[in-house]
Amino acid sequence: MSLVLYGFPLSANTHRVRLLLSMLSIPYEERTVNLMTGEHHQPAFLALNPLAQVPVLVDGDRTLFDSQAILVYLAESRAAAQWWPGDAYERARVAQWLFVNANEINNGIGYARNHISFRIPGDPAIPLARAKAVLAVLDQRLSEHDWLELGRPTLADIACSTLVSVADEAGLDRGTWPAVQRWHQRLAALPGFVPMPRLKARQG
Amino acid sequence: MSLVLYGFPLSANTHRVRLLLSMLSIPYEERTVNLMTGEHHQPAFLALNPLAQVPVLVDGDRTLFDSQAILVYLAESRAAAQWWPGDAYERARVAQWLFVNANEINNGIGYARNHISFRIPGDPAIPLARAKAVLAVLDQRLSEHDWLELGRPTLADIACSTLVSVADEAGLDRGTWPAVQRWHQRLAALPGFVPMPRLKARQG
Repeated sequence: MSLVLYGFPLSANTHRVRLLLSMLSIPYEERTVNLMTGEHHQPAFLALNPLAQVPVLVDGDRTLFDSQAILVYLAESRAAAQWWPGDAYERARVAQWLFVNANEINNGIGYARNHISFRIPGDPAIPLARAKAVLAVLDQRLSEHDWLELGRPTLADIACSTLVSVADEAGLDRGTWPAVQRWHQRLAALPGFVPMPRLKARQG
Repeated sequence: MSLVLYGFPLSANTHRVRLLLSMLSIPYEERTVNLMTGEHHQPAFLALNPLAQVPVLVDGDRTLFDSQAILVYLAESRAAAQWWPGDAYERARVAQWLFVNANEINNGIGYARNHISFRIPGDPAIPLARAKAVLAVLDQRLSEHDWLELGRPTLADIACSTLVSVADEAGLDRGTWPAVQRWHQRLAALPGFVPMPRLKARQG
């Protein structure tokens, strides 16, 4: 069955799915949705996701939006219990961080990066304050634990890592959170890891 | 085993958990964390949730933060497959809306309500625009479906309902989204439903 990921090269939400697909060695085809020309607001894409956001995953006759929900789907449908455990409490502990990513990290680092690096209009002060607050929480946790939950890499680490790895594109000094940096180096050393595409590399 | 919910009366995030507990007829004790005096920033509470947010669920020796993760935990640990199905695709379809609630609804209706009704400093314009955008998506979907996914009430409806039901406290006219209103009436007719505490009722 063919697996198609609708995404955008510099989208952290898209990259989160790419990262898990790569780590699970799942073949897929990526189709670019041109956010610059507003393709995500066209009827053809809105039929896939009424929220007008990438990524969308199409797995045969199944369609899903939201990067975190797609991670959960891939891990469950491919029986990747290392990344998304079967036990209710362990699973919910991992899920906590998927929601932290969807809310605090996305609305912190993600929105600040949108304003600063993609020049989307808006005041970056509020997202920057949220970014710093959640990075401080992550840094404290990761100064005491190698991984966010369960003592091993899980969907929690995959989900939270993509925007954190480009926090400098949101105007933040990544050196402020050293435990977060070491955690990301551990993640980057795992088989199948692929780094977030960098804005500077594309501009340079 | 004792179940303790740390929450706050007017918190929509707390109420989301109360609503599922009531619908599942699960007995629990609620302990109020006084957000007005900053109790959520005190060490005793930060030990439960470093993000300094309600709700937190304590189930014996298990501790969880994030209302959506708690919903998932309760449904899985209490085998409530009606609300959170076992099939990977069905589950991910429900999960999509848990993330929409954590992100778009919370950062839209939730933040606008914080600024307007709780007088937390900040410009409500951006959250109000996000609130209207997601309410339009919900209204379109609910004009074609009785429930958000699977043709029956699930965690998706529980999660998205609490803030939507007090959208007027965010300065929004709920009549603008009639399909959302009818959906909420269907939810309110289910056994065990408990409505969000209203700010006006407490002030009046």
